[in-house]
Amino acid sequence: MSSSQEDRLLQWLREQLHGDGSDRLGDDAALLPRAETAITVDHQIAGVHFPTGLDPRVVAQRLLAVNLSDLAAMGAEPRYAFLALSSPPDQDMKSFLQALLKATRDAGVELAGGDLARGPVLSATLTLVGGKVPGGRWVRRSTGEPEDRLWLGGPVGQSALGRHLLEGGADFQNSRIQLPPELASDRGLATAARQAIRRHLFPDPQIDLGRWLARRRRAAAIDISDGLSLDLHRLCRESGVGARLHSASLPATTRFLDLCAWLQLKPLDLELSGGEDYCLLFSLPATIRPPHSYGCTHVGELTRDRSILLIEGGGVRLLEPQGWDHLRTTE
Amino acid sequence: MSSSQEDRLLQWLREQLHGDGSDRLGDDAALLPRAETAITVDHQIAGVHFPTGLDPRVVAQRLLAVNLSDLAAMGAEPRYAFLALSSPPDQDMKSFLQALLKATRDAGVELAGGDLARGPVLSATLTLVGGKVPGGRWVRRSTGEPEDRLWLGGPVGQSALGRHLLEGGADFQNSRIQLPPELASDRGLATAARQAIRRHLFPDPQIDLGRWLARRRRAAAIDISDGLSLDLHRLCRESGVGARLHSASLPATTRFLDLCAWLQLKPLDLELSGGEDYCLLFSLPATIRPPHSYGCTHVGELTRDRSILLIEGGGVRLLEPQGWDHLRTTE
Repeated sequence: MSSSQEDRLLQWLREQLHGDGSDRLGDDAALLPRAETAITVDHQIAGVHFPTGLDPRVVAQRLLAVNLSDLAAMGAEPRYAFLALSSPPDQDMKSFLQALLKATRDAGVELAGGDLARGPVLSATLTLVGGKVPGGRWVRRSTGEPEDRLWLGGPVGQSALGRHLLEGGADFQNSRIQLPPELASDRGLATAARQAIRRHLFPDPQIDLGRWLARRRRAAAIDISDGLSLDLHRLCRESGVGARLHSASLPATTRFLDLCAWLQLKPLDLELSGGEDYCLLFSLPATIRPPHSYGCTHVGELTRDRSILLIEGGGVRLLEPQGWDHLRTTE
Repeated sequence: MSSSQEDRLLQWLREQLHGDGSDRLGDDAALLPRAETAITVDHQIAGVHFPTGLDPRVVAQRLLAVNLSDLAAMGAEPRYAFLALSSPPDQDMKSFLQALLKATRDAGVELAGGDLARGPVLSATLTLVGGKVPGGRWVRRSTGEPEDRLWLGGPVGQSALGRHLLEGGADFQNSRIQLPPELASDRGLATAARQAIRRHLFPDPQIDLGRWLARRRRAAAIDISDGLSLDLHRLCRESGVGARLHSASLPATTRFLDLCAWLQLKPLDLELSGGEDYCLLFSLPATIRPPHSYGCTHVGELTRDRSILLIEGGGVRLLEPQGWDHLRTTE
């Protein structure tokens, strides 16, 4: 009961933050200046969102990235972060906190408060506060209209492939990816596998693309966390529209397809319902195209008819809202 | 992988919320109107902050109360809540959510977003956003001055006594407190025990007192979460002052003292370092007294000399900053 590891750790945190808002850590709550704000909360729990042994520094980066992706989908400017962290007694909180501080700083985000405790497993919840992009507006899920074009901000399916590899014997230790020998020996497959694992562990939130969308006259967006098909259903539901998605337009590299074939996985399943892609799915009026530098792909259209259809090899089928269900029963 | 228990539960939540901001749940982040805000985050983890078998409805109420207490200490008006919840697969999330919805509604708070998952133990993180009290200012820890009077908003030590009883055989099931037979048989002790357990399970955040403080010319405050002595040290450190605390002034009922004697516990230890009291410790210029209706007690003074002293039975000693350390190693 002696005082107080918590106070000492908080003191250390304030020193890390220098002037940089460290003042905000002295009270029972953090004071933020007058502004319209977008707020999002995500958590990452060992054994649920990531394997128990994963490097806490990777967990910290991933936690921030996943939250940033939500703000990107709102076209928001990331500003403040609040952390609730619990970790097992034998785990050093500082490596997690240092990685989070570095990642927040890189993203222009100020760590403005939090709550620390010891708990049975590493469990971290991040609340992120975003502001309006200067000269922009909020991007919503509900502002899509029939005949808008549907765009993807990046590749889908790779992250799920990376998760599959990590569950099947690949590993990430001391900042290095270890592949099973049979995979490591083929240079092309090994490159694809490393890329997929990196994509899974280090999502790349599309904040710049979100800023660009915020400055358009009209755009609707969602970040793909639970799978393209499920998140497309969500966007369409909020906008009161349907969609046609062209499977042939989905961006997939030959390497990704080769690795799927080698693993006997269907690429389209991963692309449609793998989840944790953390790139943006968005709609724009047909007259507007995102700048080439964002690497977006035109993958379909919104429709007045409420059906959500997949166009595949000349055929058409209803696209089921399949994806990652956070409430499914896990081991 | 079928879609999606999560979407169904979110739909249910939106229905519970009616018009009441349910609109905010449709996007990747919640949009809040332009305002200065105070933000606080707290978490409650089974086996760490409460016993594993505790009724999820109690956990929900307690989580909100603990957070509200932080806002009370800032003199803030509670407005929005964001929840990150994970619970074991065999546990019904709805009873937790229903209790939280009721408690937020009672407090005038809107549940504006969240993140749900299955996890190994019940773990809930609440982010609470408060606004400025009309005509008021923020209350800080740093605005205390020498010769200010030091006040306590409620009794201290009872919550720790309640925790001690729950760890030692008392129980709370189906909204009823069960006491060990030897305690249940003495009416006076049993009443004191029930009161202490209620105080521990259902903290009573002093939002109204916080509002009143926000309208004063000057006040400093902190909520006592980790123990009077530790939190007094924090208030003094932020204000750059010392303090004299009069042990004889601490509000304690005869019943509380009798129960402590029966349990062979030192009341002063519980009062000074028991923690989880969730009442306010605050300072005011000597000319201002809180209204009688808030039940506050004048317990000391702030001093120019930086020492923090306990006046006890005519003697004086340095008050150590002892209390609840969230980072201490637990079982």
